[in-house]
Amino acid sequence: MRRLRIGMAQINATVGDFEGNIRKILEAVAEARSSGVDLLTFPELAICGYPPEDLLLKPQFIEENLKALEEVTKHSSGLTLVVGFVDAKGDIYNAAAVIHDGRLCGVYHKIYLPNYGVFDENRYFQAGKECPVYVIAGVGVGINICEDIWYEAGPTTAQAYSGAEVIVNISASPYHFGKGNFRERMLATRASDNVAIVAHNNLVGGQDELVFDGNSLVLDEKGRLIARGKQFEEDLIVADLDIEAVFRTRLHDPRWRKGTLLLEEQRQRGTRIVVSEEPSTAPKPSLPQRQLQVRQFPGEVYDALVLGTRDYVTKNGFEKVLIGLSGGIDSSLVAAIAADALGPSNVVGVAMPSRYSSPASISDAELLARNLGIKLITIPIEKVFQAYLEVLAASFEGTEPNVAEENIQARIRGNILMALSNKFGWLVLTTGNKSEMATGYTTLYGDMAGGFAVIKDVPKTMVYELARYRNSLAGRQLIPATIMDKAPSAELRPEQKDTDTLPPYDLLDPVLTAYVEEDNSIEQIIAMGFEEAVVKRAARLVDTSEYKRRQAPPGVKITPRAFGRDRRLPITNRFKGW
Amino acid sequence: MRRLRIGMAQINATVGDFEGNIRKILEAVAEARSSGVDLLTFPELAICGYPPEDLLLKPQFIEENLKALEEVTKHSSGLTLVVGFVDAKGDIYNAAAVIHDGRLCGVYHKIYLPNYGVFDENRYFQAGKECPVYVIAGVGVGINICEDIWYEAGPTTAQAYSGAEVIVNISASPYHFGKGNFRERMLATRASDNVAIVAHNNLVGGQDELVFDGNSLVLDEKGRLIARGKQFEEDLIVADLDIEAVFRTRLHDPRWRKGTLLLEEQRQRGTRIVVSEEPSTAPKPSLPQRQLQVRQFPGEVYDALVLGTRDYVTKNGFEKVLIGLSGGIDSSLVAAIAADALGPSNVVGVAMPSRYSSPASISDAELLARNLGIKLITIPIEKVFQAYLEVLAASFEGTEPNVAEENIQARIRGNILMALSNKFGWLVLTTGNKSEMATGYTTLYGDMAGGFAVIKDVPKTMVYELARYRNSLAGRQLIPATIMDKAPSAELRPEQKDTDTLPPYDLLDPVLTAYVEEDNSIEQIIAMGFEEAVVKRAARLVDTSEYKRRQAPPGVKITPRAFGRDRRLPITNRFKGW
Repeated sequence: MRRLRIGMAQINATVGDFEGNIRKILEAVAEARSSGVDLLTFPELAICGYPPEDLLLKPQFIEENLKALEEVTKHSSGLTLVVGFVDAKGDIYNAAAVIHDGRLCGVYHKIYLPNYGVFDENRYFQAGKECPVYVIAGVGVGINICEDIWYEAGPTTAQAYSGAEVIVNISASPYHFGKGNFRERMLATRASDNVAIVAHNNLVGGQDELVFDGNSLVLDEKGRLIARGKQFEEDLIVADLDIEAVFRTRLHDPRWRKGTLLLEEQRQRGTRIVVSEEPSTAPKPSLPQRQLQVRQFPGEVYDALVLGTRDYVTKNGFEKVLIGLSGGIDSSLVAAIAADALGPSNVVGVAMPSRYSSPASISDAELLARNLGIKLITIPIEKVFQAYLEVLAASFEGTEPNVAEENIQARIRGNILMALSNKFGWLVLTTGNKSEMATGYTTLYGDMAGGFAVIKDVPKTMVYELARYRNSLAGRQLIPATIMDKAPSAELRPEQKDTDTLPPYDLLDPVLTAYVEEDNSIEQIIAMGFEEAVVKRAARLVDTSEYKRRQAPPGVKITPRAFGRDRRLPITNRFKGW
Repeated sequence: MRRLRIGMAQINATVGDFEGNIRKILEAVAEARSSGVDLLTFPELAICGYPPEDLLLKPQFIEENLKALEEVTKHSSGLTLVVGFVDAKGDIYNAAAVIHDGRLCGVYHKIYLPNYGVFDENRYFQAGKECPVYVIAGVGVGINICEDIWYEAGPTTAQAYSGAEVIVNISASPYHFGKGNFRERMLATRASDNVAIVAHNNLVGGQDELVFDGNSLVLDEKGRLIARGKQFEEDLIVADLDIEAVFRTRLHDPRWRKGTLLLEEQRQRGTRIVVSEEPSTAPKPSLPQRQLQVRQFPGEVYDALVLGTRDYVTKNGFEKVLIGLSGGIDSSLVAAIAADALGPSNVVGVAMPSRYSSPASISDAELLARNLGIKLITIPIEKVFQAYLEVLAASFEGTEPNVAEENIQARIRGNILMALSNKFGWLVLTTGNKSEMATGYTTLYGDMAGGFAVIKDVPKTMVYELARYRNSLAGRQLIPATIMDKAPSAELRPEQKDTDTLPPYDLLDPVLTAYVEEDNSIEQIIAMGFEEAVVKRAARLVDTSEYKRRQAPPGVKITPRAFGRDRRLPITNRFKGW
């Protein structure tokens, strides 16, 4: 019975860290060897990390990436590897190297280059034109890269009808909630349509605004799940592929029998590249059945935020983080995520009460810090606020208190956090949510001051869900009930409430999704049943706060469209839907 | 004698301002009519402004743009117009409408979509595939868009050999210093190679990071300049094109006689679209000879900064700006630019001396404000600084003063400027130069706080050149000699000098250009004759301050590669050249 034992190394590569990425690759090679794997795959651009952005314009970056590939090639004895790297042949290509037993046997060039959303691949890469099939351990294997497999009549089909029994798709597919299910259905369709086993090897890890969720999949020729990699963790997935079953299924599939004619032609045109005719004869250890986990939202969003935060902090060389704790739900959730990502001993909370802070705000922050086991520093801002008002008195004479005085307080807090950051080398995490980022209900250089904006893509209503989720995991009020239950307030003037300025969040959030993520017009959103005044106000706030978002720190993308690379609007813009 | 009177409306369109753009277009139509123009052209995407970025993903934006085109079409009686707009036919296209006498006669779709540097056109547009030639007033006219004409064997040549005697290229070509000359040589080559008159109608105006410099050109069939639009100003260029001369030159050009065979084939394939067979018979007023100005750097850079600043401020609805004046060269230059852009009465300087400010810093700022005729507010920061040190005393106990205390001062200044901005609605201009932005020699939320960073793409050595240029224009020390002559200092600690931290600017700037703008490796820059230690230090500073630049306000691009949309590096990045 023809079988192929495949290993998929779901590694957490770091952009530009050639040494570290080689080390991870070679560790997986050693592990795969001891598991009797015939073919070991790695994610898209595993050698250099994804996305390298304009590093790709540096010739020395391309060269180091080629050297790293040589290094990996040297250490591949007895195995066949598929490794993502940047190929340089006149132009540069997003490529997959096929390496066998110390030799580079072939290179596949990605054909479909995504250039939408967060992707800019046309900026860098030339598109590939060929869809070869490799014979690996006697099995026909078609290799393609990420976007390639999303096209129904793309390389996957060309390869299947050219004799590929297995399709290896190496990927760096950024996470957003719900995408996993969608991707899985697409891959299952691709597998059953082409009567081929599909092995999708995704990247895992955080890179600036993006989180790659792993969740690599092997699906059989009927689209049924054979194996799944962990979500948000590194993993080595090993699976035995029943090639015989592919053959049998094709034999009885009328579509396929028509296709095999194409296959014969294709073979004669010589697009079949033989890497190794026979599977390795070494005895293989038997494989335990992998447990197929089903993750549910909001669990996966929470895990995405934890991984994105951990990787941003540690890959940028920080150990500790600093968070301004207001006693509100946003900063409490961010502190919980940070404690889960880095350990409570690496998280410092700072309470900075003002004349407008309620006593509960301070006691809530203290209770939260105790619950999480993080350190809390308290620095009242009244004295500094008073000093600002004094030096500004002459300039402000005759004016009424307004947003100027409010923002001074937020910016004092930003300055204090940054001073602690500069003094002790701790990274400041900001605590603004997506509803605030969208509407500009946030102070530039104030609560927006910091290196990483953990929940900037999380709408306020989802902030509550995530807090409840975390509490349910803990089996207790880790985030205190008083924090969960209080009305949101910036506490920058007496009795201030978010609803003084914004529509209630349960109305606002769906309007923002419709406007920001789905590009609906005002008319369309009103037709969905929302009040005209609410819709127009929300749209106006979104449009007029683009300048603030342009100066925001990056944060984890968890929705289909995040602020940042994903959404590129001009600041200077007179187009008004409202 | 066959002649065509062409008008090129070099307008300052605003992104999303359909009403305003229509008004400008119709004003030009009226003026062109009274000048007896046969064919009137407008810049690339004149209807909606350039670049509209992700507004193009909003269906309602596309619709309004189509309505605006209809409005323009209605008002075109007696004229032929070429107007840039977004065409929507299944997909969307960067397009040129050919309108004649109230009717849309044809649409050209841009074929070469730039997707490098500041450009993302593959993100939005489908590429055109056809190169028609229009017969306008009896003359063969090939129309193409911006990038199209940069390709030697592109649409221009296809159109010339299909019977075009005139090539109209509508453009939105962003300025950087020296590009004008380069573009002019390219256009002259294209004209003489194809024995065709080239009329290049460029956009003028500022849009976020970009300035379009106008400088529209008409070149005859031998590549000689016939007319030039103003640089950095709106203009209506009117020129009489001698079509007879094109015919005569082609008759004697052996290359061309070969090409005419192609032309005949092309005609038979019906790619010639007749708009109007005859030139208008109305008597034409005679044209004054346009004076051909030759602008020299740094004059053109200065003008670019003035226009970019004026348009950012006014198109975003501001009147007045606020600038922190330190008595140093950077803030002095920015104040001079702002005063030229907006008038001195719309510029407010704020001096914010600290315990480390030299007495000369304050008197220099005062002298500068007097020279420029701008208001100066003085707000000493000592009291606020003292308050911060007090509230932080417990946390800072046992530490030595370091960058934390320095940055507190810069951030107090940022906070004061923002408080004035919030109180009075004035836009804060930041004063950091490119050398500082590159090396991170700047305080995030401190001197980087503000809405527009006027000189963020101007290296320090060029800052001095621009100051000298401005003084030479004034014929006096508008920017006082004491400011020009003092050693640069941030004045955040006793006796601080920039050279404590950075290499001297005349060494640093060429290294930064080689590293940031030209992607040279450390080894290559050392081989150019720079000291290894200087090169490595500069490269390290550039690489490790990416996070600061990500949160910087936009500023005017004046070099071949600016920070911002033009250069997209990851923050999380372990690739080190140094």
